[in-house]
Amino acid sequence: MSTEAHSSVLMPSEALPENAVHVQGPDLSKPIDLQDLLRSYETIGFQATGLSRAIQVVEEMRKQRSNPDEPLTLFLGYTSNLISSGLREILRFLAQHKLIDCLVTTAGGVEEDFIKCLGSTVLGDFHLDGAGLRKKGLNRIGNLLVPNSNYCAFEDWVVPILDTLVKEQEEEGTKWSPSSVIRRLGKEIDNEESVYYWCYKNDIPVFCPALTDGSLGDMIYFHTYKSSPLQLNIDIVADIRRLNDMSVKSKKAGMIILGGGVCKHQIANAMLFRNGADFAVYINTGQEYDGSDSGARPDEAVSWGKIRAGAESVKVYADATLVFPLVVAATFGKAHWEAEAHKANGAPA
Amino acid sequence: MSTEAHSSVLMPSEALPENAVHVQGPDLSKPIDLQDLLRSYETIGFQATGLSRAIQVVEEMRKQRSNPDEPLTLFLGYTSNLISSGLREILRFLAQHKLIDCLVTTAGGVEEDFIKCLGSTVLGDFHLDGAGLRKKGLNRIGNLLVPNSNYCAFEDWVVPILDTLVKEQEEEGTKWSPSSVIRRLGKEIDNEESVYYWCYKNDIPVFCPALTDGSLGDMIYFHTYKSSPLQLNIDIVADIRRLNDMSVKSKKAGMIILGGGVCKHQIANAMLFRNGADFAVYINTGQEYDGSDSGARPDEAVSWGKIRAGAESVKVYADATLVFPLVVAATFGKAHWEAEAHKANGAPA
Amino acid sequence: MSTEAHSSVLMPSEALPENAVHVQGPDLSKPIDLQDLLRSYETIGFQATGLSRAIQVVEEMRKQRSNPDEPLTLFLGYTSNLISSGLREILRFLAQHKLIDCLVTTAGGVEEDFIKCLGSTVLGDFHLDGAGLRKKGLNRIGNLLVPNSNYCAFEDWVVPILDTLVKEQEEEGTKWSPSSVIRRLGKEIDNEESVYYWCYKNDIPVFCPALTDGSLGDMIYFHTYKSSPLQLNIDIVADIRRLNDMSVKSKKAGMIILGGGVCKHQIANAMLFRNGADFAVYINTGQEYDGSDSGARPDEAVSWGKIRAGAESVKVYADATLVFPLVVAATFGKAHWEAEAHKANGAPA
Amino acid sequence: MSTEAHSSVLMPSEALPENAVHVQGPDLSKPIDLQDLLRSYETIGFQATGLSRAIQVVEEMRKQRSNPDEPLTLFLGYTSNLISSGLREILRFLAQHKLIDCLVTTAGGVEEDFIKCLGSTVLGDFHLDGAGLRKKGLNRIGNLLVPNSNYCAFEDWVVPILDTLVKEQEEEGTKWSPSSVIRRLGKEIDNEESVYYWCYKNDIPVFCPALTDGSLGDMIYFHTYKSSPLQLNIDIVADIRRLNDMSVKSKKAGMIILGGGVCKHQIANAMLFRNGADFAVYINTGQEYDGSDSGARPDEAVSWGKIRAGAESVKVYADATLVFPLVVAATFGKAHWEAEAHKANGAPA
Repeated sequence: MSTEAHSSVLMPSEALPENAVHVQGPDLSKPIDLQDLLRSYETIGFQATGLSRAIQVVEEMRKQRSNPDEPLTLFLGYTSNLISSGLREILRFLAQHKLIDCLVTTAGGVEEDFIKCLGSTVLGDFHLDGAGLRKKGLNRIGNLLVPNSNYCAFEDWVVPILDTLVKEQEEEGTKWSPSSVIRRLGKEIDNEESVYYWCYKNDIPVFCPALTDGSLGDMIYFHTYKSSPLQLNIDIVADIRRLNDMSVKSKKAGMIILGGGVCKHQIANAMLFRNGADFAVYINTGQEYDGSDSGARPDEAVSWGKIRAGAESVKVYADATLVFPLVVAATFGKAHWEAEAHKANGAPA
Repeated sequence: MSTEAHSSVLMPSEALPENAVHVQGPDLSKPIDLQDLLRSYETIGFQATGLSRAIQVVEEMRKQRSNPDEPLTLFLGYTSNLISSGLREILRFLAQHKLIDCLVTTAGGVEEDFIKCLGSTVLGDFHLDGAGLRKKGLNRIGNLLVPNSNYCAFEDWVVPILDTLVKEQEEEGTKWSPSSVIRRLGKEIDNEESVYYWCYKNDIPVFCPALTDGSLGDMIYFHTYKSSPLQLNIDIVADIRRLNDMSVKSKKAGMIILGGGVCKHQIANAMLFRNGADFAVYINTGQEYDGSDSGARPDEAVSWGKIRAGAESVKVYADATLVFPLVVAATFGKAHWEAEAHKANGAPA
Repeated sequence: MSTEAHSSVLMPSEALPENAVHVQGPDLSKPIDLQDLLRSYETIGFQATGLSRAIQVVEEMRKQRSNPDEPLTLFLGYTSNLISSGLREILRFLAQHKLIDCLVTTAGGVEEDFIKCLGSTVLGDFHLDGAGLRKKGLNRIGNLLVPNSNYCAFEDWVVPILDTLVKEQEEEGTKWSPSSVIRRLGKEIDNEESVYYWCYKNDIPVFCPALTDGSLGDMIYFHTYKSSPLQLNIDIVADIRRLNDMSVKSKKAGMIILGGGVCKHQIANAMLFRNGADFAVYINTGQEYDGSDSGARPDEAVSWGKIRAGAESVKVYADATLVFPLVVAATFGKAHWEAEAHKANGAPA
Repeated sequence: MSTEAHSSVLMPSEALPENAVHVQGPDLSKPIDLQDLLRSYETIGFQATGLSRAIQVVEEMRKQRSNPDEPLTLFLGYTSNLISSGLREILRFLAQHKLIDCLVTTAGGVEEDFIKCLGSTVLGDFHLDGAGLRKKGLNRIGNLLVPNSNYCAFEDWVVPILDTLVKEQEEEGTKWSPSSVIRRLGKEIDNEESVYYWCYKNDIPVFCPALTDGSLGDMIYFHTYKSSPLQLNIDIVADIRRLNDMSVKSKKAGMIILGGGVCKHQIANAMLFRNGADFAVYINTGQEYDGSDSGARPDEAVSWGKIRAGAESVKVYADATLVFPLVVAATFGKAHWEAEAHKANGAPA
């Protein structure tokens, strides 16, 4: 054996910088609570460290929202399936307590919130047989099932509203856009379980450029025959004006994006107009190797000017249902509980 | 050692059915051409078998498009990044020779086709530094780069067209929808390299409900200030009517969907109105475990009635740039070359 | 529009079974502790539901380990990188308190535990430049860094032990296998931070068939020159006998497998000899589409008889660093804390 | 709207370097053959470009194998499932014509080659029910099925050989290692369809440190009872010596690794002893975010000195069954066909 082989393998290394952070997991021999366990993630490595970083960045965004000089505007995007999941209740919490400033989602991300007010989504399994489910009228979303009757109930609820929208368009000259339609639906549902009810109450705009790409689109399609020769008009130009203006006017801007597709691209694109977001947290399962925007790392957005060079950003590679409850519990949740406890103790808000 | 252990491990199996297909790869000791190599994929297993199946299903769709009794309508969806990639030339081939009936994509999937007529997209690397690229004005899409000047050229080209769209809206009462805007742009580009030029020439509708979610949206946003108090109106209701009507009227329907997001969901959703597609090929890298529609297998669409029970369907788990050129070369390409050779031999078309 | 289109889309569904579980997330308006938050995961859907299920299955295994009639034998497998991560401390907790019965890992999963007793692994980043790191002698494992000097320290520590192993082989006729080498190293390290120190103390066998595939193999390789003409002999037949015998003798058997590769296959394969495991939890990021054993779902193992038909099994699709701390905190950790509290209160153990 | 917003979005870019490569796909309007189609992949982008690069790197390795001054030693690793797939025939082609110098795989990657000489592996489906398959004795590997009777046939074949191995161990003092066992099995199978028959014939070493982790291990386990009190001894130290010596002695070294796990790590680790491989092609579906070696990019190996800084390396993110046939057809296959054609034309070899 050559000494070269030995020295290749056993080359000594430079001294580590003094601030090097040692990898170390939590000691589960002793009781640990939620917040401490999550803090321990920082030094676990891999995605645990990513989650810890996401919590830090979200916490920073949370604090900067109430900075009186340069309040941060927080844009939150999420895919349709997350409203189908139990993350809906977490999104509702954020909307109810005005903890976010703008939502962007896709059609299912809008309609499924209303439909859940009319009927339940239930647990299923990823491997139930499609043809068997079709016979029973059970629509599968991953390991969830939505009975088709829920969509029938949705039709009953939404058609009269669509009638009204057309009427207002024709009689009052109302120009509808996806965000104004969503706001109206949020008002009409009048149900505290709904994310968009609270968005309506709290004046949080909800953008959804492809609003027709789902059950609401189905209902609107049927309605074009019902209302003929009149036809509802939903204009997407008004909304891109409104969304980009929000970005331009924000003193600081942060984005939290759960999943990929339009909700991810649309928020990031809006950030261009202010030369990039100051904070960005992506949580999704996409990979960059296929060149999709869905799988792109934050650094790709930096090249476009969608995230500022030097901004705090992190991508957590995980299904959002696993980690978003932890992120919110460690940031907005914790702060809310502390504020409530403070109030309960008789302190001024 | 117990005999039980032995019998658990070495339990004999039932006889295989006679039509069982033996796994066997190609013999590369002898020369093999493209078509034979792809045929050999059928018995390689894993995704090679999936690709072989995709080729068979696409070939069946291709043939049924010219069935005089029940012509198949072929819907093709793809994400924005594929127009940025060299798949654009393959999509152009399909549009030029009228081999597809309907396209659905996202905003970048529209605008990048036109922008490529004005400036090149070039090869880069997945790991170029975002901040360094931003300084140079080079926007990264996976391992591709788009110089920002291309977007400046796009502005110069598109603004006068937007002026005209507003003018026609105001003066002639034209009601614009994403598909009619795309058709006009395809006409204006007047360039045989463009996918949408050929869609215009060949009357192939192109749907893009979230048309404002990209550079075209940026231009439209700026233009709302330029045209103020007038404002372009782009209505998405007209398009959902048009797309779903196409689905309802199709005798047979097939879908090829490259990537996920809106382009996947929108086509599949349209299939609901005819009780499901007859054929479906998905090519993407998404996974079902996060419950996203992007990652859902065809069988999830069966539960919804978006794909008929018993329809021919397959999902190939791969970046579309790897496999779509092979799929087209083995189906539409091969048929086109054979028809051309036939014509060159003096035969009637 | 046809009524057929309407009835396809709005077909009513069968009534849901009475025991259908409604999807519902946690209400973060009120404080929630770790255990309750994890319990809420059951009805969130997607991987949150998977994690909840994993916790239930692990808890069942934990309880059945102390079933006096049919005690369950718990096999735990994990890849090398998890010992590099902070999961090492969680694995150490499990070994220290005799909460598992058998470990299976790969070479790095053995040596990195010892090396961490000699020098730290530190946090880095997934995108540090490889050539730059090489110059500094910093070896990257995902977003972790191991200074090469740690391997020099490992050499200093392990070579005298290798000398002894050869001596005992020659003088006492000791026949070494991977598990007996690991046991000896665990004894020699004599450090309570080490997983394998506790395995030695608590007589927990550790299997690692490819023990030479890592730094320990490097040291053994160099040592063959040092000890020449004598040469250490490490026999893998003795270990497969020992592992499979453990499986055969277990009254009930459960497996927890973090990651893929040999540690996953080897445990599952051992289960064949008892006609399948009774419980199985997989946590990994692999996918089934490439036909790898690493990505295979539990149901593939059922076809082989590695998991019993009807066994409780679940796969959580996630990086183990995100979820394994939660799984252990909600099962072995919680039970340990409760038992300790009970003891502190003066109760008999 | 501010001009700042406009200038952020429409900042002009620096001129592209003159050698920038324009993204451009193949023109399928005209017939294209296999080699030209694959050449067109270079400028398609995303993984198509990656595949094109892999072909270039493999072609360079192929050429350098016959460099008289500094012949390259080519190490090829692959996971078990690829021998189950039709890639086995491609690996056989490479072994038969002495186109590779060293193979590294896992236990299934060894035994399934022999088992295929005794009974067929057949096509199945990823979603066949595990319990149903178990009843029939059909073992699933992704979308493939192996009848359990094949393993019974394997037992019949291998037990007499194991008897002989023990006999030679006891009577002739033969010291067995995984590679010498595999060589013997390759000789005994005496079947030109077998990869390892050709490895035996052509003196190509095959390493498999965890040789007991599969059906061969099952047989060896049973055999320890049969041969008792004698017991076969398979030593892994001899093989690590042999493999690392091969690395040290190679003038140039290249690696092609299909899949992850031990076959990937073991080859890369051997490269340490020569200060890194000169060429590396990875083809797998793993991702880096979980910190696994399986998913690590080549640049992680650079940090360890497993790949030389400046070496030609590429990772193709794909199931190997999709792309490896293309890679071999465009390199070793093409060269072989041309040489054969040359010979057939009466030219000297």
